[in-house]
Amino acid sequence: MANRVDEILSWYGSDNPGVLKNLRWMMETGTLAGTGKMVILPVDQGFEHGPARSFAKNAPGYDPLYHYQLAIDAGCNAYAAPLGFIEAGARQFAGRIPTILKLNNSDSLYSSDDPCPAITGSVDDALRLGCAAIGYTIYPGSSHRNEMYGDLRAIAEEAKAAGLAVVVWSYPRGGGLSKDGETSIDVAAYAAQIAAQLGAHVIKVKPPTALIEQDAARKVYESEGIKIDTLADRVSHVIQSAFDGRRIVIFSGGAAKGEDEVLEEIKGIADGGGFGSIMGRNSFQRSKSDGIKLLQTVMQIYKDTA
Amino acid sequence: MANRVDEILSWYGSDNPGVLKNLRWMMETGTLAGTGKMVILPVDQGFEHGPARSFAKNAPGYDPLYHYQLAIDAGCNAYAAPLGFIEAGARQFAGRIPTILKLNNSDSLYSSDDPCPAITGSVDDALRLGCAAIGYTIYPGSSHRNEMYGDLRAIAEEAKAAGLAVVVWSYPRGGGLSKDGETSIDVAAYAAQIAAQLGAHVIKVKPPTALIEQDAARKVYESEGIKIDTLADRVSHVIQSAFDGRRIVIFSGGAAKGEDEVLEEIKGIADGGGFGSIMGRNSFQRSKSDGIKLLQTVMQIYKDTA
Amino acid sequence: MANRVDEILSWYGSDNPGVLKNLRWMMETGTLAGTGKMVILPVDQGFEHGPARSFAKNAPGYDPLYHYQLAIDAGCNAYAAPLGFIEAGARQFAGRIPTILKLNNSDSLYSSDDPCPAITGSVDDALRLGCAAIGYTIYPGSSHRNEMYGDLRAIAEEAKAAGLAVVVWSYPRGGGLSKDGETSIDVAAYAAQIAAQLGAHVIKVKPPTALIEQDAARKVYESEGIKIDTLADRVSHVIQSAFDGRRIVIFSGGAAKGEDEVLEEIKGIADGGGFGSIMGRNSFQRSKSDGIKLLQTVMQIYKDTA
Amino acid sequence: MANRVDEILSWYGSDNPGVLKNLRWMMETGTLAGTGKMVILPVDQGFEHGPARSFAKNAPGYDPLYHYQLAIDAGCNAYAAPLGFIEAGARQFAGRIPTILKLNNSDSLYSSDDPCPAITGSVDDALRLGCAAIGYTIYPGSSHRNEMYGDLRAIAEEAKAAGLAVVVWSYPRGGGLSKDGETSIDVAAYAAQIAAQLGAHVIKVKPPTALIEQDAARKVYESEGIKIDTLADRVSHVIQSAFDGRRIVIFSGGAAKGEDEVLEEIKGIADGGGFGSIMGRNSFQRSKSDGIKLLQTVMQIYKDTA
Amino acid sequence: MANRVDEILSWYGSDNPGVLKNLRWMMETGTLAGTGKMVILPVDQGFEHGPARSFAKNAPGYDPLYHYQLAIDAGCNAYAAPLGFIEAGARQFAGRIPTILKLNNSDSLYSSDDPCPAITGSVDDALRLGCAAIGYTIYPGSSHRNEMYGDLRAIAEEAKAAGLAVVVWSYPRGGGLSKDGETSIDVAAYAAQIAAQLGAHVIKVKPPTALIEQDAARKVYESEGIKIDTLADRVSHVIQSAFDGRRIVIFSGGAAKGEDEVLEEIKGIADGGGFGSIMGRNSFQRSKSDGIKLLQTVMQIYKDTA
Repeated sequence: MANRVDEILSWYGSDNPGVLKNLRWMMETGTLAGTGKMVILPVDQGFEHGPARSFAKNAPGYDPLYHYQLAIDAGCNAYAAPLGFIEAGARQFAGRIPTILKLNNSDSLYSSDDPCPAITGSVDDALRLGCAAIGYTIYPGSSHRNEMYGDLRAIAEEAKAAGLAVVVWSYPRGGGLSKDGETSIDVAAYAAQIAAQLGAHVIKVKPPTALIEQDAARKVYESEGIKIDTLADRVSHVIQSAFDGRRIVIFSGGAAKGEDEVLEEIKGIADGGGFGSIMGRNSFQRSKSDGIKLLQTVMQIYKDTA
Repeated sequence: MANRVDEILSWYGSDNPGVLKNLRWMMETGTLAGTGKMVILPVDQGFEHGPARSFAKNAPGYDPLYHYQLAIDAGCNAYAAPLGFIEAGARQFAGRIPTILKLNNSDSLYSSDDPCPAITGSVDDALRLGCAAIGYTIYPGSSHRNEMYGDLRAIAEEAKAAGLAVVVWSYPRGGGLSKDGETSIDVAAYAAQIAAQLGAHVIKVKPPTALIEQDAARKVYESEGIKIDTLADRVSHVIQSAFDGRRIVIFSGGAAKGEDEVLEEIKGIADGGGFGSIMGRNSFQRSKSDGIKLLQTVMQIYKDTA
Repeated sequence: MANRVDEILSWYGSDNPGVLKNLRWMMETGTLAGTGKMVILPVDQGFEHGPARSFAKNAPGYDPLYHYQLAIDAGCNAYAAPLGFIEAGARQFAGRIPTILKLNNSDSLYSSDDPCPAITGSVDDALRLGCAAIGYTIYPGSSHRNEMYGDLRAIAEEAKAAGLAVVVWSYPRGGGLSKDGETSIDVAAYAAQIAAQLGAHVIKVKPPTALIEQDAARKVYESEGIKIDTLADRVSHVIQSAFDGRRIVIFSGGAAKGEDEVLEEIKGIADGGGFGSIMGRNSFQRSKSDGIKLLQTVMQIYKDTA
Repeated sequence: MANRVDEILSWYGSDNPGVLKNLRWMMETGTLAGTGKMVILPVDQGFEHGPARSFAKNAPGYDPLYHYQLAIDAGCNAYAAPLGFIEAGARQFAGRIPTILKLNNSDSLYSSDDPCPAITGSVDDALRLGCAAIGYTIYPGSSHRNEMYGDLRAIAEEAKAAGLAVVVWSYPRGGGLSKDGETSIDVAAYAAQIAAQLGAHVIKVKPPTALIEQDAARKVYESEGIKIDTLADRVSHVIQSAFDGRRIVIFSGGAAKGEDEVLEEIKGIADGGGFGSIMGRNSFQRSKSDGIKLLQTVMQIYKDTA
Repeated sequence: MANRVDEILSWYGSDNPGVLKNLRWMMETGTLAGTGKMVILPVDQGFEHGPARSFAKNAPGYDPLYHYQLAIDAGCNAYAAPLGFIEAGARQFAGRIPTILKLNNSDSLYSSDDPCPAITGSVDDALRLGCAAIGYTIYPGSSHRNEMYGDLRAIAEEAKAAGLAVVVWSYPRGGGLSKDGETSIDVAAYAAQIAAQLGAHVIKVKPPTALIEQDAARKVYESEGIKIDTLADRVSHVIQSAFDGRRIVIFSGGAAKGEDEVLEEIKGIADGGGFGSIMGRNSFQRSKSDGIKLLQTVMQIYKDTA
């Protein structure tokens, strides 16, 4: 299995050994160590949606230490959060699980049709906190996309020089897109491509629907007969769209939902060759034992396809 | 033929030997080495138009390594792409073909009447990746033109000091122009002039039509009898407009089209004294063998007029 | 005559000897050397109006080397142009004539009621290209004036520290003014004052008309009986408005016109105590011999009043 | 066992989580993972003593990749070497074993009674190469000690801010000491104290002899009855001298010697509460299988006392 | 043959693609292109020994352009010289042959038993002059070695980040060594090791004699039976000492001598697996045709063993 990790690392030939070290750290941690698959626990919902919406369903989640421990106990590859949550447990959990410092975040007290997150952390923060990677969200489709891309460019350059991996949440949203179009297959594939072109090492997108948003794209999907019927088909197309599979692409879990629904989706992602999942609300909005059980089932699905 | 390269380099007397080295590298590479003509493979369409629209017609093109190899196998002078595509193959292909790092790019998930690309790479990136040049797009006619010109100014200054060549895509577009006017002869000539005045070493424009967009220009074209009937005439006028032929001006191929149509256009460009072509979709949206065949035919046309 | 140059330099007591050296270089060059009068050749019209409108009437003017040679052959004090034109001949003509690098420029592919040029060059560019001065355009009356004034401030500070002279094109234009008001006497005088207050060493304005634009100004012009009947009167008033004659103020020639008309205007400027002219289109849109002849006649007029 | 690692980390309360992560990485790697004991492979002898003296006995050791693999195969906690050796394998071995970049080194082509190493690497090198720590040698007793202490101070400050651990080789040597005094118990204990006071996280000293070098010290050792008879006594005293056991102190193996002699010494160190060993020549100057066997026996001794 | 170049580049895994590009440029230039062997023309003797001693034997060599042309005409892989010589021809020869800017140099007007060169150029100079590499001399054995190593460290870090290769002249000399010892086998091997540990990409040493300088080394050479009888043996040992052959090591030609003697030495180097030669005085202190003939014979010897 270690060969699979080496194979994946070989795709990042322009990166220095420091970046490779941190990519390896994430891929050699937890239940999926060595498989080239990843399940990451992200907890930025407190910032993004507010505390009650995020943590009231499972109140221990108000505590930042809870999530570090959850990620470890469940066997996740990494734990991702904004500055405050990472700082709150970084000493106790130093080196016990790779962390990803989310360097930008949006709150919901001001909403805009064209979202643009605030920059809430730095590469130096990530170094002093012992993180493996920095995380950054872009919203392709927003009128502020250029500001996000440009800031990511500068941050990624600094992170890579310091040996940190770069994880990009690529979430189409904004005035350029319909609401449904945000998760349409053409837009999702495009979002993965944009993140890859911006130099992301790990790309996070949402599981795409069979909808096609842009007319110019529809013509090609139809004329070339691109298969998008099943989730597996669509995931496969997204992976292809991220440098023909030469970049790690993982999929978000979205809002909390029933276990069956989650597992059905994971199977589709796994069958399509997805590199893994980043599952927040479906993990920490359950009781700890249920969350762990679900995460482990998810990991088993990825393991079976590795 | 080498004398032609020396003659061209003599036009860049304010540039340091590092810039001249990289201009020479591009002009001494591939099938057209030494002729002073250039055919460059650009692959930024994944970012600009999305992955499916760009690569579905010839699926190997999803893979970034494909394009490096295509450019080499076809005998191109250089390969141009955004950060992610360049990074993905820079180690394997280091020094095997001159590369041009596109430092700004637009995606199509948000469209604006007044376009403005995001900055997606840096001069330091170009140095660490071993590039020969940086590439930059300006949209004269956009309300954001000043931001683009100003950013280009700063980037070009830094690039030139570090010995990198500066290639400018000058694409009129935006609120100041009609749709047809974007490729009108007066606007195309003006776009070439602007790029030259901004200090570009290599200028890329679109093949111009016989339309005249601006009334103030029309008066002069008519009173002075500027010949714009044939593509060769118009290309000749654009070249003249770029410092009377003392700057390298190459022409884009535009959307994929039939071979005959492509070759017809290339003949016009070559007859008008154009320095070459930058052909993306017409190269990589064909099968590899067809793409190479077409590129080689194009190169032969330029060779015949060198 | 040398005493007049010393006298002029004595007005710039806060500037360092480097700036004085460059002011002296301009005043000791060409036909008007030592007279304290200046005739400068500016060629930024390729950028500002487009190549055909600028150079088709006299096609050799497409070539950047033409203008360097024209300025030298005609005996001009200096040659001013944007980055590309200066770079294109700076090596061959290094030290043969003082050059002024225009650091901001507007093109005509996007027009706005409130103009604001792009920054297209730097003080470091001016140093590496061996220029005597930097040039900068402000548009008093535009809603973007503060951006222009602020950028000029920073650039002038840097230029002066490096010993470069600062030449300011002060062209009232924008939402704050009527079209005719742009060249009204009160506005022209005000524009000269603004440039002087911003720290310009040499100020370029347009020859003013007898119109008064602003009511608040009219009251004073009338109550104080300020003489504005003849061009000489008005030029005299503009000079007075630029620190009572303690700043070099020169006048632009505007669009190409008949020789008689040009000379009539020059006589007015000279009679009013103007320090000289900056004549572009009237110089290079004639044949070279006609352009030189006209420039020499203009210089003779200034010489006669020196 | 993990509790012991947490206990050790609790001593470093002024360090940021990044440093703790890297200390943990080293303590959770290899055969001794989790015991709080460490065996490190250092290979700077090529620089310090020359290649033949270092590698001729076991010629595969000329190859930098050999040592990475040896450290991994033997189950070491970390591998330490100068820039060249680390660079030569950092890509292949990225993240497979913690590395310590030695930032200063001495060669033996110029010898001085008062040694002072050259600075041969940087904190930025350590980051780009993915190292866990930087290493630095001080020679207390040398007339150049202040230069070494001062440089270490600056480097350690930078390393700690970036989350890197600081490993200090504290080797008394120089005009202030007799040859035998370099390893005397009072001097060794003092050397450990100096390194701890300079902010080292991990301190490397030589196993001390029962000699007392300084008269002022002898009085106290005698009056207070400090036990120094056995190596275990002396190691215990050195550990006490490094903040009463609140700093990690490891012991060097010195020149290659017989297996029995090595193991005898290790037993003394382990009995005295030493945190481990840093064994170079005794590891790589044997055949690979013998080296691994010896290292594993050494580790077992530490494990037994953990 | 290209595979050999790829194999060599694979040793430099911690370097960015920019460095690999420049190493490839040198290895793909001239008669030995693609063989992995190199013959470099160095001309720093004007600075090091004075002009008459360097150039009087073949007076055209006073002209800096002579050496550029000699290197090209002879089919060398690169040309190395101090700032002045490189500057003097960099424009005319830009991109026609890889250049190595020597960043430190010693003159002979002040001699010291412990030599230390002056720093005479910068990484920025190398970029603006379009060089492939920077060159730097260290004198192991000098009391000033630490200053040289430390300066090289900083320069190499900067050069590598900018994509320039680092060529180190490692010439043992100074108070720590006897005169004969400078070229003794143990010292030469040690000098190669030091340069490699300092991060050199290409290492230049002198062909070693069978002498052993240091007693500590002699014991090992004798006990391990290291073969040093023939020049080929000794070269082989030096190559082994530079990371077991994983660094490019080339050999200097030394003072001008008879053709037979030169070729005899080259055969020894080639037989021992040397990567090539850097031949100055034996090249330019002959007539141009003799110099070229000798260089080509040398290249043929290397080609035969490639």
